[in-house]
Amino acid sequence: MTEHSLWRFARALHRAINERQLEAIEPLIDDDVEWAIYGPIDMFPFLGARRGKSAVLEVIRQIANYVRVYRFDRESVLLGADTAASMLRFSLTSLDSNKPISLRLAHFAQFKGGRLRSIRVLLDTFDLVEQTLGRPIHLPKITSFA
Amino acid sequence: MTEHSLWRFARALHRAINERQLEAIEPLIDDDVEWAIYGPIDMFPFLGARRGKSAVLEVIRQIANYVRVYRFDRESVLLGADTAASMLRFSLTSLDSNKPISLRLAHFAQFKGGRLRSIRVLLDTFDLVEQTLGRPIHLPKITSFA
Repeated sequence: MTEHSLWRFARALHRAINERQLEAIEPLIDDDVEWAIYGPIDMFPFLGARRGKSAVLEVIRQIANYVRVYRFDRESVLLGADTAASMLRFSLTSLDSNKPISLRLAHFAQFKGGRLRSIRVLLDTFDLVEQTLGRPIHLPKITSFA
Repeated sequence: MTEHSLWRFARALHRAINERQLEAIEPLIDDDVEWAIYGPIDMFPFLGARRGKSAVLEVIRQIANYVRVYRFDRESVLLGADTAASMLRFSLTSLDSNKPISLRLAHFAQFKGGRLRSIRVLLDTFDLVEQTLGRPIHLPKITSFA
């Protein structure tokens, strides 16, 4: 039984981020890959949409310059033949501030011939912003829910 | 071929929110259900974790008092035997302000005997907060990514 493309990609991405080694991940990315991590790009320029292998390699390099992955737990995984979705919880260190950041993430990915064809990632972005700022943002309580 | 539990649950949840009818969804929730929608509970008291059917019915009622679903698109769906994950894009109306809210959401769900056993939901919460406030929150640009 062949290993699912997700696992090979995940190992290579982990290595790309923590060791700044892009060699292992480059052949696992489709030339026309579609990539999106939804979130506030004004604060985090490496969030947002990218198209094509070179743009995606560049954004992985930028992410690698900003964080190290300290540990992660897979909370849920669903695999199809060429698709994968997981929810993960990461413990990161921001190289900017040396601060620990705890981040929950959901991704939906498609592979083609063992290469990443598309990936979309959702984060709890408000929590990420507050942790990065190092202080809470005051929010009004909405009223009409009771 | 039996319909996947996800579709029956999704229809009943949609109806519960838009028509404030909890009768159809009540039998589709396990007594010991685990429920979490990650996000800022100070602003949105119906976010956060709930345990057990009555707490979950109450939180669905609170959500129904706050929003109407205007339309939604399923962007990705993965189904296992008793599991499901999807990424959806919702057009909502906040009953608080009558404002339109556009919301992307990822969920991972488990069913048991056709009933929801657990669900965890991730949102782009920063975007949700900004839309609800009706104004952007100024963010500093992080520096060490280039």
